[in-house]
Amino acid sequence: MSATDLPPPASPSIQPPYYAVIFCSQRTDATPDDGYGAMAERMAALAAAQPGYLGVESARGADGLGITVSYWRSLEDIRAWRAVTEHTAARDQGRRDWYRHYELRIAKVERHYHWDESAGTDDPVPVAQR
Amino acid sequence: MSATDLPPPASPSIQPPYYAVIFCSQRTDATPDDGYGAMAERMAALAAAQPGYLGVESARGADGLGITVSYWRSLEDIRAWRAVTEHTAARDQGRRDWYRHYELRIAKVERHYHWDESAGTDDPVPVAQR
Repeated sequence: MSATDLPPPASPSIQPPYYAVIFCSQRTDATPDDGYGAMAERMAALAAAQPGYLGVESARGADGLGITVSYWRSLEDIRAWRAVTEHTAARDQGRRDWYRHYELRIAKVERHYHWDESAGTDDPVPVAQR
Repeated sequence: MSATDLPPPASPSIQPPYYAVIFCSQRTDATPDDGYGAMAERMAALAAAQPGYLGVESARGADGLGITVSYWRSLEDIRAWRAVTEHTAARDQGRRDWYRHYELRIAKVERHYHWDESAGTDDPVPVAQR
């Protein structure tokens, strides 16, 4: 899955505090037809349809290490997404077939800065500060 | 910079709460000699030598979108790292030469789960819960 398959990064207009799910995973040796890409796209679309979803950022390098950070309004929204049956099944298959290891962290976003080359500013702009 | 140039992901033995700096950036069109790779390696080594540094996870896809999450003991440690002169100069050059846009978030890690295929567990293991 490439980042371009996913919704754009979380909107800079959404102000902290909110929550991040930081998922860092090492893929098994990928084969073109192992189903991972299709599952990842499906999960991205399913997540984006959940209550409290704010956005996602995702990247995976050629070495198979990937990071996906999804953003949510509340811990309750994260729990509800975790309990979605199709998501639970995808996690089970991930542990069986797609991942060697992963780290999963839940974090409360307290500050967010945004910078764009077209903005003409030298410094990143605080979206909001708690 | 590939993830393998970096220290291993933050140790699962470090218990929350601690802090994450989530940096998601879109590179300009990279050229082999634009200095980015050397800077990134230098910054990773310099960060790892700072007080309160706990670890890093980093990935960049072929489309130039990259995510680096560094972990720190406290907000004060993050502020001190931000103030390191060589780091400030690298950020300035990043905005001038290397990035189209980026999002930077500071977040408090409240929970951390770890899973490894060799562990023989179906579920990720909570490293600690607040």
